[in-house]
Amino acid sequence: MLCWFCGEYSEGEWNHQGEDSLQKYRLDSISRREALHCLLDAVTFHPRREIIPVSDARGRVTAEPVVAQSSMPPHPAAAMDGIALRSQVTQGASPTHPLRLQEGRDFSYINTGDPLPEHADSVVMIEKVKLLDRGEVELVEPAHPWKHVRQPGEDVAPGEVVLSSGHQIRPVDQGALLAAGVKQLSVLRPPRVAILPTGSEMVPPGLPLELGQLREFNSTVLAGFLEECGAEPDRWGVVPDREEALREALLSAADRYDILVVNAGSSAGSKDFTPQVLGQVGKVLLHGVTTRPGRPVVLAKIGETPAIGLPGYPVSAYLAFDWFVRPLIRHWYRLGAETSPSLRARLVREVQGGTGAEDFIRMRVAHVEGQYTAFPLAKGSGVTMSVVRADAWLRLPVETKRLKAGEPVELEWVRTPTEIEQTLVLTGCDDPLLDRVGALIRRMFPGWSLFREYTGSEEGLDLLQRGGCHAVALPGDLRQELLPGMIRLRVAEREMGWITSAMVPTPIRGVEDLIRSGLRLINQPPGSPIRERLTQLLDERAEGRRPSGWERAEGSHWKAAASLAGGTAEVTVGPRSVAQAFELQWKPAWREPLDLVLSQSVAESAGGKVLTRILSSPELREMAAQLGGYDDSQAGELITSSLRMNPRESRWER
Amino acid sequence: MLCWFCGEYSEGEWNHQGEDSLQKYRLDSISRREALHCLLDAVTFHPRREIIPVSDARGRVTAEPVVAQSSMPPHPAAAMDGIALRSQVTQGASPTHPLRLQEGRDFSYINTGDPLPEHADSVVMIEKVKLLDRGEVELVEPAHPWKHVRQPGEDVAPGEVVLSSGHQIRPVDQGALLAAGVKQLSVLRPPRVAILPTGSEMVPPGLPLELGQLREFNSTVLAGFLEECGAEPDRWGVVPDREEALREALLSAADRYDILVVNAGSSAGSKDFTPQVLGQVGKVLLHGVTTRPGRPVVLAKIGETPAIGLPGYPVSAYLAFDWFVRPLIRHWYRLGAETSPSLRARLVREVQGGTGAEDFIRMRVAHVEGQYTAFPLAKGSGVTMSVVRADAWLRLPVETKRLKAGEPVELEWVRTPTEIEQTLVLTGCDDPLLDRVGALIRRMFPGWSLFREYTGSEEGLDLLQRGGCHAVALPGDLRQELLPGMIRLRVAEREMGWITSAMVPTPIRGVEDLIRSGLRLINQPPGSPIRERLTQLLDERAEGRRPSGWERAEGSHWKAAASLAGGTAEVTVGPRSVAQAFELQWKPAWREPLDLVLSQSVAESAGGKVLTRILSSPELREMAAQLGGYDDSQAGELITSSLRMNPRESRWER
Repeated sequence: MLCWFCGEYSEGEWNHQGEDSLQKYRLDSISRREALHCLLDAVTFHPRREIIPVSDARGRVTAEPVVAQSSMPPHPAAAMDGIALRSQVTQGASPTHPLRLQEGRDFSYINTGDPLPEHADSVVMIEKVKLLDRGEVELVEPAHPWKHVRQPGEDVAPGEVVLSSGHQIRPVDQGALLAAGVKQLSVLRPPRVAILPTGSEMVPPGLPLELGQLREFNSTVLAGFLEECGAEPDRWGVVPDREEALREALLSAADRYDILVVNAGSSAGSKDFTPQVLGQVGKVLLHGVTTRPGRPVVLAKIGETPAIGLPGYPVSAYLAFDWFVRPLIRHWYRLGAETSPSLRARLVREVQGGTGAEDFIRMRVAHVEGQYTAFPLAKGSGVTMSVVRADAWLRLPVETKRLKAGEPVELEWVRTPTEIEQTLVLTGCDDPLLDRVGALIRRMFPGWSLFREYTGSEEGLDLLQRGGCHAVALPGDLRQELLPGMIRLRVAEREMGWITSAMVPTPIRGVEDLIRSGLRLINQPPGSPIRERLTQLLDERAEGRRPSGWERAEGSHWKAAASLAGGTAEVTVGPRSVAQAFELQWKPAWREPLDLVLSQSVAESAGGKVLTRILSSPELREMAAQLGGYDDSQAGELITSSLRMNPRESRWER
Repeated sequence: MLCWFCGEYSEGEWNHQGEDSLQKYRLDSISRREALHCLLDAVTFHPRREIIPVSDARGRVTAEPVVAQSSMPPHPAAAMDGIALRSQVTQGASPTHPLRLQEGRDFSYINTGDPLPEHADSVVMIEKVKLLDRGEVELVEPAHPWKHVRQPGEDVAPGEVVLSSGHQIRPVDQGALLAAGVKQLSVLRPPRVAILPTGSEMVPPGLPLELGQLREFNSTVLAGFLEECGAEPDRWGVVPDREEALREALLSAADRYDILVVNAGSSAGSKDFTPQVLGQVGKVLLHGVTTRPGRPVVLAKIGETPAIGLPGYPVSAYLAFDWFVRPLIRHWYRLGAETSPSLRARLVREVQGGTGAEDFIRMRVAHVEGQYTAFPLAKGSGVTMSVVRADAWLRLPVETKRLKAGEPVELEWVRTPTEIEQTLVLTGCDDPLLDRVGALIRRMFPGWSLFREYTGSEEGLDLLQRGGCHAVALPGDLRQELLPGMIRLRVAEREMGWITSAMVPTPIRGVEDLIRSGLRLINQPPGSPIRERLTQLLDERAEGRRPSGWERAEGSHWKAAASLAGGTAEVTVGPRSVAQAFELQWKPAWREPLDLVLSQSVAESAGGKVLTRILSSPELREMAAQLGGYDDSQAGELITSSLRMNPRESRWER
C-alpha cells in the first residue's frame, strides 16, 4: 500500500499495521515515522459535509470535485481594443488594394472584454486601422476568423472540474469558482478536538498561583495550533490527578469529539497514568517514540476516536503535536503531508545529540556577510522562551551523535529567511542598555531586530570570527588586540558594583566583605570578564578563597537580580541600572567602558548602519539617563581602531 | 535612509522620494521596486492600539514590547525525580564514607517540576540514591548546591521582554506570555480597507448575467487576500463607469477607511479614468510599472489615505496586490518584507519574455526521478484558471528576454514542494476518461493528484524525454518506436467520431461532408494525431482542401464541445463520451487505442504505482462504462514493450 502522507509505497501492508505486531514494540522503541504510519493506519475518519456559499469558502476543504456551471468568458469577447467585423468581408485587402469599411454597416468599435456583436467573428487592433472621415476606416490586410477574440469557455467551460476534491480553498480559487458560475459547494466539516489538560497542580490562566502550583498554558497553545490547521478546538477544564477523573473525562469526550488531545501525564513518573487509563478505556497503539524532546507520547483509540497523550513539557508537547496531531487533522481532510521549508546554514558551534534517539535542536541563525550560520540555543524542554526565540530547528538523526563546527546543515526555519536577514545577533556580555538598543532598533527600523546571546568574551570573539554573530558586547578592559578588519564602538561607560538583596543588613563593598559575610553569590559564567576580575580580586585579597555560590552562574544581570529579589541568593556583581530597576542595594566597585566589537564589513552593511545609527542616537542617550549609571559622552564613537568614519562615503577609512 | 521593507540602505533619501522628482517619471517607466519605495515613503500610518486578552491574541501584532509580570518557574523546582535536601549536610559523603539520611528530617521525595521544600537547595537523582529500610537512604557522594534545581525565573524573570513591539503573535508566544504572568497586551488595530469594484458591465456574484455583462469576482479574491494579511476588508458595491460616481465613492471612502483599493479602470483605455479621478480628488504618485502582467497599476493618495488602483484582469490584479497592497498592510503593522519561498528547477521548454519590462510567468513544475523540472503555462492575464493551476512563478528580469530549455531557474512556489512531489504531470492528448483517472487518484490516494497539459504527441514525448512530465497520453496509432526504457500502458480503446451541434440538420460523416457543408470546424492544435489524421483524409479525399475554421484549435475536447453548444462553431472531431455529455450529434469515424507512455523507472516509483493501480481498478472501468464509447478489456495492460510486471517484486521485467 501507499502511505498517502509521506508518499512511501510498499506492496504489502505496513509491517506495524497488524494489531498483533503492535504488541511486540517495547516502550520507546518506535521511530517517529513508523509511529505516524501506525496511527494513520489505525484511524478512519468519516467527516460530514456541508454546503456553503463560495464567499465563505476560504480555507475550507472541498468534499468532492467542483464543476463549472457556466462559461468564462460567457460570450465571444474582444481581446484587444479595436474594431469588430466579419472576417469574410476583409478577404483580399492589401496595401495595394486597401479596403474601405463603414461603421455600423461593416464594423463597430469595441473595447477589450466587450462582447463581440452578433455577426462579427474577428477583431482588428486599433493600431492596424486607418481612420478616415465620415465613419469610414481603411484596412490593408485581411482579418482572420477569431483573431483577437476570446472564445466562450476559453478560461473555463461548463462541466469542467474547477477544483478537485480534497483541495484547500485559496482566494484565487474563490475567484475561479465565481467566474465559473459556482454559487455554493460541498466542503468537509472541521474536526472537533477536545483538549484535556491534566494535573492537580495546574492553574488555568487568570487564576492566582499558590506555592507549588503551575500555570496551565499548553492548552491555549494547542488550541491555537488546532485553529491554524483548520480544526475546532475545545479546551476543557483541568482534569485532576485521579484515575477515575481522567477515565470519566476521556469516556465522555470520546463520544462527543472527533479527536482527543490529553496533556500531560504521558511520561513514566508516579503521577503519569494517562497511558494506563487510555489502555483501560480504549486501546493504546504505542507509548514512546525514539525522538527527543517529545519522546513520551501516547497514541491510542477510544472506540473509533483517536486520543493523543502529549508530554507535559511545553517544547515536547509542541513537537509531538506537530508529529502526530497535525497529520491527523490533514488525514481528516485527506490532505497530503505539509512542506517544512528549509534553509542551508553552516554550523559555528559543535552540536551534541544524545544516544538512541533522534534529536530536535533549537537553533539561532545569523546572516552575516551573505552567509547563513547557526548555533544551538540552550537545551531543556521546559524552556518556553527558547521556542519563542528560536530561528530554526535542526534534526539530528539517531545515528548522528555529533556535528562539528564548520559543517553545513539543513535547518527547518521557524522565523523566515527575510526575518533572519534583518536580525542582528549580538553575543558577549549583558547590560540593560543593550536591551534598549534592541527596543530602539524595532521602533526606528521596523522589520529589523536584535537578538542577544550571552557568552564569555573569548567565545563571543570566536563566534564573531566564524561569522556566527554580527557583534560582540565587551567590557572595555579587554586585554587582547583586535584582529585585523575588526573595529570597536563605544556604547557607554558603565558603573559596576556589588548588588545585595534588601534582606542583607550590611551592604557588600568588596571581596573581603563577600567572603566574611558567607552570603550566597550569583556569579557570571566561565569566560566572563566579571568572573575573571572577581577571581583576580579573590586571589589578591582573600587568599584565593571562593564565596558560597561561586559555581552558580547566570549570564543575564536581570535574571541574577530577579533571583536576589526572589531570595535564593543574596549577592551578585552588576551594573547600577539593574540594581536600581529591582530596588536592590548597590555599592560601587569599578567603572568600565562597554563596547561593541564588529568587523568593518558588517559595520558598512545595512545592519551595521542600523546599529551605528542607534548607538549615536539621542533616543539611546535619553534611555541611558533614565536607567542611570552610564556615561554616554563617547556613545557611538570608534575607539581602538585607527579607522574613522567618512560621512560622505559612509565607509570606515584609515 | 534605510528601506525598512527590503533592507536596502542609502545615506541620502530615496531619489524618488521628493515630490518634485515624481513628476519626472513618465507613465510605465518605474520599476516595481522603486514604485514600492515611492509608495511606502509617501504613506505614514498612525494605527490605533487596543488592549486584548492573551487568549485572543493569535495573529495580532504587538504595539509595544511585552514585559514578563512573574517568574517562570515561579519557585525553585526539581528538574529531576529524586530527593530534595540541603546540600551542606551531604559534605564528605563518599563510597568509603556513605551518608545515611532520614526522610522528613534530612530529605523528602520530589517529582520533576515540584517546588523545592523551604530549606532544601539541591536535588539528588533517584538513580543515585540507595534506598534502605525505615525511611532511610544512603548517598555515596556529596550533593552540589542548586544541582538539578530550576531557579525561579530561569525561563523568564519579571521585567524581561517576552515579545518585542511589531511582533506577530503565534501560539507559542501566547504560551510564553501566559507563563510570564501576562494577562493582556496592547496590539495594533487592523487597517480597514475599502475595495471599490468599478465597471458598469460588472455584476456581483449571485445576480444573473445578461449578454455583455461580466461576473465581478476580483473583489472577493482581494477581500480574501486582505484577510490573509490581517486587514479588515469591506467590499463596496460596483461603482458604475461615470467619473462623478467614482469621485464621490473615493472621497466618501477616503474619510472612513485606512486604505482604498480600486479595481479596475487603471489602464489607458477610453473607460479607464481611475488615474484621472484619483488625480482630481488626491495626488497620483505614479501610474504604471515596468512589470507584466500588472503593469497599469496606479498608486495615489487622497489626503493621507493611500489609494491603489489595480488592473482589471484577474492575474494582473492579483500580482499588483502582492507588490503594493500586501507591503502596505505590513507597513501599517511595521512588519518587514515577507519571504517568498523558492525552489530550484530545470527548464524543459524555452521561456520568452517581452521587451522593456520584467515578466512574471506561471509555471508547471514536475518532480520526476528526484529532479524538479518546469515549463510555462498558457499566457494571458485574463485566465483565472491558470492561476488556480499554477505550481510556481518565474520572474524574468527586464534584461532577460529568453531562457533556453535546460537552464536552471529559481521559482517562487505557489503549491508546496510536497504537493508538487505528489502530483503526476500528464501531457499528450485529451480524453474525458483521463479526467476520471485524475479524480480517482484524488479519491483513492489522498494527497496525490494528476495535472494535465494538452500537447501534440511529439511535444509530449519530447517533454517526457526531458523529465518534464511523468507520462504522455497517446492515441494508439502512433508510428514511432518507443525510446529505450519507455513502456506503454493501455487506458482503453475509444470510439472517435464527428461531433456536430444540435443546430446542424444533417450530421457529418466524413471529410467530404465537412467540406461540402461549409460548417465551421474546431480543430486540434498542430502536432495532434487527430489533426494529422484529418490532414491525411483531406489530402486523400478532398483534394487537400481545408474546411472553414481549420486554424481554430482547441486541445480540450470538452472546451471544443462547449463551443459547439455555445454556437461559435458547428463541428469537431472527438470521443463519443464528450458528445454524449453535451447531448451533441455524433457519427463514428474510427476506433483507436488510448495509451500512456512512461519510463520504466517512473512506473516503478510511488507515483507510477498510483497510476497503474488506478488504470487497472474496477472503479475506472465503471466510470468508462458510464461515459460510454470505451472498450476497457485491456485497461492497465502493458502493450508494446517486452517488459512484464512481476507482481511479487513490483518491478517491470524482461
